[in-house]
Amino acid sequence: MEIFVYHTPELTPDQSLPDCAVVIDVLRATTTIATALKVGAEAVQVFSSLDDLMATSESWPGEKRLRAGERGGAAVAGYDLGNSPLDCTSELMAGKRLFLSTTNGTRALQRVKDCPQLVTASLVNRGAAVDYLAQTQPKTVWLLGSGWEGGYSLEDTVCAGAIASLLREKGIDFTVGNDEVVAAQSLYRQWRSDLLNLFKQASHGQRLLKLDRLEDLRYCATEDLIDILPKQVSPGVLTAA
Amino acid sequence: MEIFVYHTPELTPDQSLPDCAVVIDVLRATTTIATALKVGAEAVQVFSSLDDLMATSESWPGEKRLRAGERGGAAVAGYDLGNSPLDCTSELMAGKRLFLSTTNGTRALQRVKDCPQLVTASLVNRGAAVDYLAQTQPKTVWLLGSGWEGGYSLEDTVCAGAIASLLREKGIDFTVGNDEVVAAQSLYRQWRSDLLNLFKQASHGQRLLKLDRLEDLRYCATEDLIDILPKQVSPGVLTAA
Repeated sequence: MEIFVYHTPELTPDQSLPDCAVVIDVLRATTTIATALKVGAEAVQVFSSLDDLMATSESWPGEKRLRAGERGGAAVAGYDLGNSPLDCTSELMAGKRLFLSTTNGTRALQRVKDCPQLVTASLVNRGAAVDYLAQTQPKTVWLLGSGWEGGYSLEDTVCAGAIASLLREKGIDFTVGNDEVVAAQSLYRQWRSDLLNLFKQASHGQRLLKLDRLEDLRYCATEDLIDILPKQVSPGVLTAA
Repeated sequence: MEIFVYHTPELTPDQSLPDCAVVIDVLRATTTIATALKVGAEAVQVFSSLDDLMATSESWPGEKRLRAGERGGAAVAGYDLGNSPLDCTSELMAGKRLFLSTTNGTRALQRVKDCPQLVTASLVNRGAAVDYLAQTQPKTVWLLGSGWEGGYSLEDTVCAGAIASLLREKGIDFTVGNDEVVAAQSLYRQWRSDLLNLFKQASHGQRLLKLDRLEDLRYCATEDLIDILPKQVSPGVLTAA
């Protein structure tokens, strides 16, 4: 297993794909996706475009769908939900499909949609991601951060580092594919016992704090809460692996 | 003073420049530039293109010039020198101009050539870079890594982290401009007492080891050897500040 970390989808090599892509958007898309599936959503279907989301979800039975989305961290007008994992409850979601569009996370998913294995990870389910990699042993793995509008993000990089570090701790052998893997592990080692404070320093964390989302940060900074791994089963559609 | 770290010139914001750019190419361009000026080179003039380098240096008196360059880490055929700081001696260089072209470092210099203040830094002279920032107090600073062919590099990022960390240690106040600043400091804090081993893990470090350049790595991984700060005095021409 050879592991590469990419900070954003724009930084991935052209014209190649790994055997397995692990898409990371800790604040908040991939945290929300894992949480929605944990509380019983039937699937999460992701869209880059709000128009496409509306068109597809219109054909779904009204009582079986929820529309969720954010732009710039704020909820989309007229949707059932924003992008907060704290809104995911079994009362609201059990048996329903969540139609989701977010600023950055859906772009990363789009970049790797043709990978043979595509899963999503966040800190809340990083243990499930590690178990999946250990079991399936893909030859090449990309830990793909979403970043923020094309830029580096601390929260996605530290999650990539958390995954690589847990693989090492569990004695699961892998080759370091690029320099970013080493740096992500250093970031995680320094901040692992203080992840909330790292998120408070992160530019997107600060943006969410201004929107009064401290509890979101606290939840998204918690490791290994959820034993579910979202996996793509058809283009843009994720269910529990 | 607001500090931004950019891993490569390609990741800088379009259509803006800082008051001060600190260009970093630890392996090996900016280490070599600092060393050449330390041993008495009159100036270092950098070029992206080998043709431009030849054309300009031809008009220089033969006994007052040295041509140095690498492509892919290896010396350019017909040049006096490659890109090793260990070739910089006062016997060879005193009073001469070094005409230099390297794979990555010269691209980063090109990106910020119009900044009001442009200096170069590496680990061997990071203290001089910190003193310069403390004295001149530019409003915005970019610590600009060169990376490797558009990609992230550990050695440039750890040097950016070393500069930011020394500013903090000296009590020189600055604002964190982007997430990369926090990550670079974490990388440095974890590896500061073992920089050579970090360089041995770095992809470009491994490339140089295959070219039998361990002593270059060892030198480039040493902090605060040189009290010289190279500063751009006209486009592409650097002298001791």
